[in-house]
Amino acid sequence: MSGSAMARDGRIALKHGAGGRAMRDLIRQVFLTDADSVPFEGIGPAAMDDGAALKLGDRWLVITTDSYVIQPPFFPGGDIGRLAIAGTVNDLAMMGATEPLGLTCAVVLEEGFPRRDLERIQESMRAACRQAAASVVTGDTKVMGRGELDGIVINTAGVALVRQVVTDRGLKPGDRIVVTGTIGDHGLAVMACRHDLGLDTQLLSDVAPLNSLVRAALECAPGAVTAMKDPTRGGLASALHEMADKSGVSIVIDQAAIPIRQEVRAASELLGIDPLHAANEGKAVLGVRPAAAEAVAVALRRHPLGADAAVIGTCLAERPGIVILDTGFGRRLLNEPEGEPLPRIC
Amino acid sequence: MSGSAMARDGRIALKHGAGGRAMRDLIRQVFLTDADSVPFEGIGPAAMDDGAALKLGDRWLVITTDSYVIQPPFFPGGDIGRLAIAGTVNDLAMMGATEPLGLTCAVVLEEGFPRRDLERIQESMRAACRQAAASVVTGDTKVMGRGELDGIVINTAGVALVRQVVTDRGLKPGDRIVVTGTIGDHGLAVMACRHDLGLDTQLLSDVAPLNSLVRAALECAPGAVTAMKDPTRGGLASALHEMADKSGVSIVIDQAAIPIRQEVRAASELLGIDPLHAANEGKAVLGVRPAAAEAVAVALRRHPLGADAAVIGTCLAERPGIVILDTGFGRRLLNEPEGEPLPRIC
Repeated sequence: MSGSAMARDGRIALKHGAGGRAMRDLIRQVFLTDADSVPFEGIGPAAMDDGAALKLGDRWLVITTDSYVIQPPFFPGGDIGRLAIAGTVNDLAMMGATEPLGLTCAVVLEEGFPRRDLERIQESMRAACRQAAASVVTGDTKVMGRGELDGIVINTAGVALVRQVVTDRGLKPGDRIVVTGTIGDHGLAVMACRHDLGLDTQLLSDVAPLNSLVRAALECAPGAVTAMKDPTRGGLASALHEMADKSGVSIVIDQAAIPIRQEVRAASELLGIDPLHAANEGKAVLGVRPAAAEAVAVALRRHPLGADAAVIGTCLAERPGIVILDTGFGRRLLNEPEGEPLPRIC
Repeated sequence: MSGSAMARDGRIALKHGAGGRAMRDLIRQVFLTDADSVPFEGIGPAAMDDGAALKLGDRWLVITTDSYVIQPPFFPGGDIGRLAIAGTVNDLAMMGATEPLGLTCAVVLEEGFPRRDLERIQESMRAACRQAAASVVTGDTKVMGRGELDGIVINTAGVALVRQVVTDRGLKPGDRIVVTGTIGDHGLAVMACRHDLGLDTQLLSDVAPLNSLVRAALECAPGAVTAMKDPTRGGLASALHEMADKSGVSIVIDQAAIPIRQEVRAASELLGIDPLHAANEGKAVLGVRPAAAEAVAVALRRHPLGADAAVIGTCLAERPGIVILDTGFGRRLLNEPEGEPLPRIC
């Protein structure tokens, strides 16, 4: 029996929700079996991008959805409510749609969930909506019995109209890779809080809606941003691999140029987790035409959420799909993680 | 301390997800605290309708979301996958939007969930999509640890464009109330299967996408359908109360005219549950201008999903918000249920 046939007889494992290869295989094998027949013009589920895009007259209707299961629901720097708004606003923004028409919010609660916590989460969602200039336009509430759900799950979907869609597969040889800020903050902050590392400095999640930051990048050099992705589950390594693979290019990353906070580096060493594999919830990876890369980085740095933006790599035509880390002492392959190292990170 | 202040210090109870008054109170108090400031033209969360509607040029973009937590996920007549597609297609249809542009599908799984069950659910979603001429255009997969989630939760959101929105608050005095078929089938089928009643005949859920049925009703008498609602959690009684309350009319229902299957009636007596309080997942309640009511009923009956359609009541101007049941021997108030009698019915 092949590995894949075994998996078909099998059971769902944590890695199937971890944003990496195991999840993509499950999605291809179970969810996308007749995706080729999707009867619309645009970007559908088979693209496995941050959302779908449907042609609507001279514009694109971008649609995205995510469920949020993070544990704990309140973490340093944010909570599940802020995460649910930012995550969906960011998925729209990664498709170039920086002005959400509306978000939906569906909450599933465990019987006995403290009402004050729900109120705090709602207040946080409202604040994140204000920051993103977005609105929750409709919702749903379900309750499961005690012990049937660990606390709270929130789903947000979002829709937006845009004239020009940006995908995660548009990288061309020569394009520069730009990150909008420090890497690994969300993943390490949540892990440190779960493990109570007793660090001197508190790590904070970077969770934030990025649509105004992305708009600044898109507007400073129209047409120059060739691909975007937010490095959530599986971190920067996973995002780069997916972009390289889908675009048919290789990517060489200058390790020294990747912005990583000193305290994130320290926590990642304590926990034995590569910060390049850790989730980010307020960062984007952009492919930019070479002539515009520095201008885009400057535009990003002018925005409060992009102060640490950096040009970190270059796309090449040879050996499509691989990602190479230039350490300064030599070059090595940057492995794609199987998935996010810890469950329920978002 | 007032009841409401006590509730604010409290914890979430099953009734807060049961579709009745307790749920609406929670939504008003926690989710809608600044809904008046929603910055768009159209129908927003404060309307608490089946979805939102945003003005887009000369049309309305209708958006809806629901999470599905039904237990068991496979039940007589359907499963959580068919329910998730039908439920969201029906919420769009209840706003007059019978041609879904696209659906999203976000699945949260418990570690250890059988992969074969997931495949069955996906196959069922695809079949329901074909029946509704709808497509899932994007999705999300999360996994929670063993014991952190009871099996599977699915969220679907949907978007559609429509020229004319139908709300649940448009009833006018004189309007006739039409139901598209037998009442209580889904709720009693799920309850009977949970309780293993040992009935001779198996009750089947009515779960079905109603968009083509609704289209037949809307097209046979343009402008004559004044309000629509699908009587899910809380059943026909809850839907009628909400429609009467929001529309500012009373409704008199002719009890003998309500179509109820004999086996549903039998099971409801065994379980002590009023079929008018039990959930439906393949039925709609329509308000229709009096001159068109019979034509709408005839158009519904020509459709395979509307064979048992019936005109069951009339709207009056006096005593707005109340629902009266005419039993044939006298008249009594039809009480609004606190919510669906059983948790996780959808």
